[in-house]
Amino acid sequence: MDKMDSQELIKSIARESPSRIILLVIDGLGGLSAPETGKTELETAKTPNLDRLAAEGICGLSEPVSPGITPGSAPGHLALFGYDPVRYNIGRGVLEAVGVDLPVGPDDVVARGNFCTVDEAGLVTDRRAGRISNEKCAELCRLLDGQVIDGVEVIVRPVREHRFVAIFRGKGLSDRVSDSDPQQVGLSPLPVTASEPEAKKMASVANRFIAGVKAALAGHVPANMVLLRGFSRKPGFPSMNEIYKLKAAAIAGYPMYRGLARLVGMDVLETEKGVVNKIQTLTQHYNDYNFFFLHIKGTDSAGEDGDFNRKVAVIEEVNDGLPELVSLQPDVIVVAGDHSTPALLKGHSWHPVPLLVYSKWCRPDGVKEFSESACVQGGLGRIPATQIMPLAMANALKVNKFGA
Amino acid sequence: MDKMDSQELIKSIARESPSRIILLVIDGLGGLSAPETGKTELETAKTPNLDRLAAEGICGLSEPVSPGITPGSAPGHLALFGYDPVRYNIGRGVLEAVGVDLPVGPDDVVARGNFCTVDEAGLVTDRRAGRISNEKCAELCRLLDGQVIDGVEVIVRPVREHRFVAIFRGKGLSDRVSDSDPQQVGLSPLPVTASEPEAKKMASVANRFIAGVKAALAGHVPANMVLLRGFSRKPGFPSMNEIYKLKAAAIAGYPMYRGLARLVGMDVLETEKGVVNKIQTLTQHYNDYNFFFLHIKGTDSAGEDGDFNRKVAVIEEVNDGLPELVSLQPDVIVVAGDHSTPALLKGHSWHPVPLLVYSKWCRPDGVKEFSESACVQGGLGRIPATQIMPLAMANALKVNKFGA
Repeated sequence: MDKMDSQELIKSIARESPSRIILLVIDGLGGLSAPETGKTELETAKTPNLDRLAAEGICGLSEPVSPGITPGSAPGHLALFGYDPVRYNIGRGVLEAVGVDLPVGPDDVVARGNFCTVDEAGLVTDRRAGRISNEKCAELCRLLDGQVIDGVEVIVRPVREHRFVAIFRGKGLSDRVSDSDPQQVGLSPLPVTASEPEAKKMASVANRFIAGVKAALAGHVPANMVLLRGFSRKPGFPSMNEIYKLKAAAIAGYPMYRGLARLVGMDVLETEKGVVNKIQTLTQHYNDYNFFFLHIKGTDSAGEDGDFNRKVAVIEEVNDGLPELVSLQPDVIVVAGDHSTPALLKGHSWHPVPLLVYSKWCRPDGVKEFSESACVQGGLGRIPATQIMPLAMANALKVNKFGA
Repeated sequence: MDKMDSQELIKSIARESPSRIILLVIDGLGGLSAPETGKTELETAKTPNLDRLAAEGICGLSEPVSPGITPGSAPGHLALFGYDPVRYNIGRGVLEAVGVDLPVGPDDVVARGNFCTVDEAGLVTDRRAGRISNEKCAELCRLLDGQVIDGVEVIVRPVREHRFVAIFRGKGLSDRVSDSDPQQVGLSPLPVTASEPEAKKMASVANRFIAGVKAALAGHVPANMVLLRGFSRKPGFPSMNEIYKLKAAAIAGYPMYRGLARLVGMDVLETEKGVVNKIQTLTQHYNDYNFFFLHIKGTDSAGEDGDFNRKVAVIEEVNDGLPELVSLQPDVIVVAGDHSTPALLKGHSWHPVPLLVYSKWCRPDGVKEFSESACVQGGLGRIPATQIMPLAMANALKVNKFGA
């Protein structure tokens, strides 16, 4: 007998109701202690409002993937949305498009591209074309954009420096094709080949596109060629509405998170920079949705920069905005992170992430402050991040009994 | 979409680096409280060095298989090495060979054997031949050893009392054959039969071997016949080098653990009896490897004997050796057990095992002593033993980010 996974289980018993859930994601929330004080960023920040929520709610730690695994932003967020991040994989091309806020259609095949340098023999001498400027990249993308090959439109958009995205938009395309990127210098770009018969058209279009690019870029040394990789289609994820019967909205500033939210079927609201503006956006749309994903990026950016104090400051900003969220009287507030980003490590890490669930029905524990050390003792224990959504749904009384 | 298991996941992102990990396994570490004191063996032992490591590191409990399951030595260790002990099964024959330090080749099929007693009608009257002495067993094994049947060499080696190992070494053998052991007295030994066509040769060689043995042992009552079971081949486990990109060495005195380490691809170092000598062996080879499995057997033996005080003494010996390990400044020290062996139960048990991870990046918790009761409150929580290796790898900064 095949076993339902936890997402299929919650899908089979989720029910629609007007109760509201706010999922506040403080990106890279978890940290490590500064050697001088023995306190993490979250423990250093003055957070009376978060602490009050912790005291009235139930706390714990969430494991984004599994012990010892450091997640990227995509798996970290998929887990928070209740999608097993090891099972649900987003192709590299699609992720790159998502990261620059490009909508990907159901028939599109998307590749990541590099501008690169080739010598007279056609051998790659620099896979990154000397990291050309963003402006140069945008200019070259405009040059290549909009061709139609065998009925397939090719949309070319800049990402950053030498990186761009190519979207192949047309019928009958498969993403089961090989990269043209040889992954090292001294080799020719590879022909794109089909890994299944249905992919022949995609391979042929890609190769004709590359041949045309070579001609068009001939005079543009160091960016006189392109390399394509990670051909992929939009993953056929079930939407959050299908799974949880939620009307879900995302409030996020960065394209990557807006794109991820779109991939799981959320409406993505327009918003402005900063914590205050994001909370205002939520307030304005409070009556239109019953689930809000509110994304705070500054903590992760500060952690990545190794800026302990700036991470502390962003956490305090979130703390200051909290009363406005609470005053809306949502049925459930979840405060979570997609992963840890300790300033000491200047990057994402594997450490479990403080977690707080606040609702009328949460069975409060003895935790009185929102911190890594206090959450270790929390009533939620240490749970996989994929179980946060079922917990939030339960606390919003949106789940039927399982079995008779 | 097939899901990667946690071993495939870590394999896909593990990276080679010079950082070093020491996995100190105190066999049967976990215990139960003596009724007079309310303290376990570990809590009774004076362990200032282990306690300091606990205070500076992060603690928890490891679950060797799952709650309520008492593991044998093989599953207990496979889990510590990161191999799902329910999925990775070592055939009984191979395990018996490993347990007496016999190398098993890739083409070998190995069976466990019993000397037994049969009556004149050929019916088994004692499956253990009156538990003959080790010396008698060795003498009879020499009698049977070294035959060549149909090009297959049969190597026969004593284990203990009536038990021996038979290795069938030759080409074209399959282990998919049935036991000759009828598992009860009053029946004839069974013919070995092939469960697949490719196993016909193995079955025929085994039956000819048994027929020859019957003739050779005719005058050796009570050991006048043999029973074979658990035909098995060396399991095709991925090595620890393949999974973790580690250069791994084992320092263990007992054949079983040396054999298990060899099955997962470790180099097995020569060492002498006692904790002090084992630590010295590690020190001598410290520059040659970046992973060390250091095995302490005395705790388990004492527990099996029901000798509470001896188990306490061995733990104190380990504690005394610890500063030398710490002084090597490895990037990660893990102190773990393969299972609990409470002296009160005189055997392995299902109780979760104290666990300690010590590294620069471990996010210390509030645990100040290494004990069962303190570890319950530890920051690692209660984790499957298979997740210890990913955690150790992460703390040694040997794992790339999962996903973008």
